[in-house]
Amino acid sequence: MSKYKNPWKTLSSKNVYSNPWMSLREDQVIRPDGKPGIYSVIEARTATGVIALTPEKEVYLVGQYRYPTETYSWEIVEGGTDDGESAVQAIKRELKEEAGLLADNWHELGERVHISNCFSAEVARLFVATGLTKTQRAPDGTEVLEVRVESFDRCLEMVDDGEITDAMSIIALLRLERAVRNQGWEQFF
Amino acid sequence: MSKYKNPWKTLSSKNVYSNPWMSLREDQVIRPDGKPGIYSVIEARTATGVIALTPEKEVYLVGQYRYPTETYSWEIVEGGTDDGESAVQAIKRELKEEAGLLADNWHELGERVHISNCFSAEVARLFVATGLTKTQRAPDGTEVLEVRVESFDRCLEMVDDGEITDAMSIIALLRLERAVRNQGWEQFF
Repeated sequence: MSKYKNPWKTLSSKNVYSNPWMSLREDQVIRPDGKPGIYSVIEARTATGVIALTPEKEVYLVGQYRYPTETYSWEIVEGGTDDGESAVQAIKRELKEEAGLLADNWHELGERVHISNCFSAEVARLFVATGLTKTQRAPDGTEVLEVRVESFDRCLEMVDDGEITDAMSIIALLRLERAVRNQGWEQFF
Repeated sequence: MSKYKNPWKTLSSKNVYSNPWMSLREDQVIRPDGKPGIYSVIEARTATGVIALTPEKEVYLVGQYRYPTETYSWEIVEGGTDDGESAVQAIKRELKEEAGLLADNWHELGERVHISNCFSAEVARLFVATGLTKTQRAPDGTEVLEVRVESFDRCLEMVDDGEITDAMSIIALLRLERAVRNQGWEQFF
């Protein structure tokens, strides 16, 4: 059997929960060892995140209380795609809603990420935006957001010391560090 | 209101789904804007991952088909904690089961990570293990695993080019790169 072939066999699939943001299905399966079992999969629309970067190499951070983890979390600007939106359209909307920013230059920051591939089909896409212009913020009713600007070096310290715990933010900041070391800041401006 | 105060009010909480690996609860809430709503939270035990590192700075990678994402995925050794296990106990067990390795030296690699804090309470903890000794592998019935050893530089290329898409693996590899640049390899041996 090729290693790239799916060693699971799906016998049936049923939705067990849905809300506007995610759904959960439970599949009856034959496991790789030939025994019957279940596999449950969370489905959610593509997650997007952006490092909004000033000419002084500062980053816009958004602070909010995250209900699931019961922690106050500083993060890059993030959000899910709405119906019919591309990842780029979604993150442009989120950058405007959450940070009140428009951006002239958009760069995808590395390849897609599987956020939690044991349970979830969720994919994340990450971006860098420069050429920022301020506009009106419009957070939605579920969001009490704080926005601050920190130097890129300070953001990396926040990753190191556990002030930033959000996986997408950590990946984006460490990817940007690597990209800048390899090819300089100019690529993003 | 302090920014660190929870702006959500939980009215009630009910379990809507459980299996041996995760559960989902739906809370009735008052949202930050004062309106009623729901918030659903996935709960799972702490996820652990380890970069098992040889004296030649090679990394053990595990390849497996990930059912939720429908992709073949190369990753560091990972697994969830079992009942009553600490994160360190869990990842030692996983390293033995998946890669057939024991390790003399264990180092936590940075602070905890919130994997998907929009939907999930899940926390990940990452480690580096050195002083490796081979022993008997014992993958469980749901796992068809392949193990290979790659140079650390090759692993970073696999992150860059999207061959490694798993969030925990990406964070661990980029954190290790940063740690080595700041303080050398010696800290792990």
